[in-house]
Amino acid sequence: MTTATATSTRIYNFSAGPAVLPEPVLKQAQEDIWNIQNSGVGVMEHSHRGKVFDAVMQETEANCRKLGNISDDYAVLFLQGGATMQFAMIPMNYSGQGRTVDFLHTGTWTKKAIGEAKLFGNTHLAFDGTDCQFDHVPASGEINYSDNPAYVHYCSNNTIAGTEYSSVPDAPAPLVVDTSSHMFSRPIDVDKHALIFAGAQKNLGPAGCTLVIIRKDFIEQANPDMPMMLNYKKQMEKGSMLNTPPTFPIYIIGEVFKWLLDLGGLDAVHKLNQEKAKFIYDAIDNIPFYSAVAQVESRSLMNITFRTPNEDLDKKFIAEALDQGFSGLKGHRSVGGLRASVYNAFPKAGCEALAAFMADFATKNG
Amino acid sequence: MTTATATSTRIYNFSAGPAVLPEPVLKQAQEDIWNIQNSGVGVMEHSHRGKVFDAVMQETEANCRKLGNISDDYAVLFLQGGATMQFAMIPMNYSGQGRTVDFLHTGTWTKKAIGEAKLFGNTHLAFDGTDCQFDHVPASGEINYSDNPAYVHYCSNNTIAGTEYSSVPDAPAPLVVDTSSHMFSRPIDVDKHALIFAGAQKNLGPAGCTLVIIRKDFIEQANPDMPMMLNYKKQMEKGSMLNTPPTFPIYIIGEVFKWLLDLGGLDAVHKLNQEKAKFIYDAIDNIPFYSAVAQVESRSLMNITFRTPNEDLDKKFIAEALDQGFSGLKGHRSVGGLRASVYNAFPKAGCEALAAFMADFATKNG
Repeated sequence: MTTATATSTRIYNFSAGPAVLPEPVLKQAQEDIWNIQNSGVGVMEHSHRGKVFDAVMQETEANCRKLGNISDDYAVLFLQGGATMQFAMIPMNYSGQGRTVDFLHTGTWTKKAIGEAKLFGNTHLAFDGTDCQFDHVPASGEINYSDNPAYVHYCSNNTIAGTEYSSVPDAPAPLVVDTSSHMFSRPIDVDKHALIFAGAQKNLGPAGCTLVIIRKDFIEQANPDMPMMLNYKKQMEKGSMLNTPPTFPIYIIGEVFKWLLDLGGLDAVHKLNQEKAKFIYDAIDNIPFYSAVAQVESRSLMNITFRTPNEDLDKKFIAEALDQGFSGLKGHRSVGGLRASVYNAFPKAGCEALAAFMADFATKNG
Repeated sequence: MTTATATSTRIYNFSAGPAVLPEPVLKQAQEDIWNIQNSGVGVMEHSHRGKVFDAVMQETEANCRKLGNISDDYAVLFLQGGATMQFAMIPMNYSGQGRTVDFLHTGTWTKKAIGEAKLFGNTHLAFDGTDCQFDHVPASGEINYSDNPAYVHYCSNNTIAGTEYSSVPDAPAPLVVDTSSHMFSRPIDVDKHALIFAGAQKNLGPAGCTLVIIRKDFIEQANPDMPMMLNYKKQMEKGSMLNTPPTFPIYIIGEVFKWLLDLGGLDAVHKLNQEKAKFIYDAIDNIPFYSAVAQVESRSLMNITFRTPNEDLDKKFIAEALDQGFSGLKGHRSVGGLRASVYNAFPKAGCEALAAFMADFATKNG
């Protein structure tokens, strides 16, 4: 399709989420929302029980398994309610009966998860990053688990602080991970986890769908008396179609998975993400005007947090950057400063351009 | 936008849901997923906390209130999980403590709601349509409420049976209604209800968003110990932005609301829906070859259920109709026969064309 629209100018969108999507996916969606696969019906208008959407669903799950090297020991589910629903759904299913849930507390998202888990049972902070302002994720020596926790919860990339685990923490219990903000940005060691979840709106697609990868033997341990939508087993048995699933978000996620496979899969996108982030981290490290928020060994490839010498200059930076076509660079209100979110779909040229802008801004204001 | 895509042939889509959307909305969405309001960013890629989406959210709620004449006594929420999540969320919030929930049982959707409510407390069938195969909704003389129910639940349009209430039932307790399959297809008497909910994927937009209209004093009676996503009060306080809401489905719903207002609002669309349904009901009534499934006084304007003389002819009808560009006419597996779903966005010309096809098919096969 050649349209005026598809050639209109787009800016560099550093939003932390919902976030930039691959342009080939958007162009395909422009076609498909009018008439997908020459069916005479748009993708949003197809019955979820019909052949066209069924094929979308099956291909999306198959490509998810291919990308993540996910075995048949795991169910792949497409649910609703975001990571926040998982914060409650997991303890509702696995906590209670006097069991304790262990958390590695690394910021806003684990704080929310801890709050929800407290509604259903005991919690223990096996690591608490509060005192260090969440500037790093725990080294193994910093973790102290409770006796026999029901499960261990961690957040593998912290959007707000800009920290990311470089390896999977050892745990004495089923390991649950919130990967919302870096899912499929690098290879993932699925087999070390009992449950992996990710809200789609950072790296996978639009808001409104949550990818859940859950080991089938862990599903068997879940509370059987859950309502349908909060019942992992029923969701698995019905292939995430217990009710009408969010068909358009799932379709977009499927297109993103195809785009990732075309790029060469997770090793290839990881290499690209390292190259992209390096432009910006090099600017932070090489220009004394800037300082990093996260400790070096915990730096996220997805959410790069930094500061100018003061808040006034942060504001000036954000305003001048926006004038030059860089949006979404304001840090989260709880941290302040600046944040560049450079998810899979964010273009390498945009990282290079931001680094050049950073150098220029420092020269003029340093 | 003039594109090859936007002029490619679309067929008449009688799907029961997800279902046909207004073509002007689809064309606008083709533009906006690339670059909305000349922001340089597509609608799916905007932060839900940013100015562009905030304006979408506010306009969508305002137009919802305008369409439904909804006062400030009610909160308007855009949630996730479909009607099925509401089937559990409502009793989790309002049942328990020995209270009984009364149901007017009119088919598959109330059956599912009753099953979920049983997880949390007692239920009573104030009407049970099982023996009459759900061929009508109850007259007031057929309803027997329990003493002091926590609330009364009914489903105002039954997609599968093809029945619809012509007026709001009297109830001795807060009245909860599932309007998923005919929301905003006609004027709605909001003030008679404590809670109105509707999965979007029939009349409002794509799958993945649930409209909830709830009286604020009813919210105050809810269980305060609910997880965030299942807590009506917290959802209200955060304007449905407790977490990232399903931004694209909400955007489409907003465009559908604008389209409905342009049509003249609910009185105008109701008149149009009556004219549309009449073509098909007249064919059923005037051609002895066809028989109706629902009783005349309970007929739905949205889901028209009927049969040919036998199952083989039903199958032949479906196949020949599809060849002529009418899709989605197979009745639900639990009822069989044929079903034409003609939601707000379904074109009048399609109803007239189906009636002509029905006459022709009857002549050839009668």
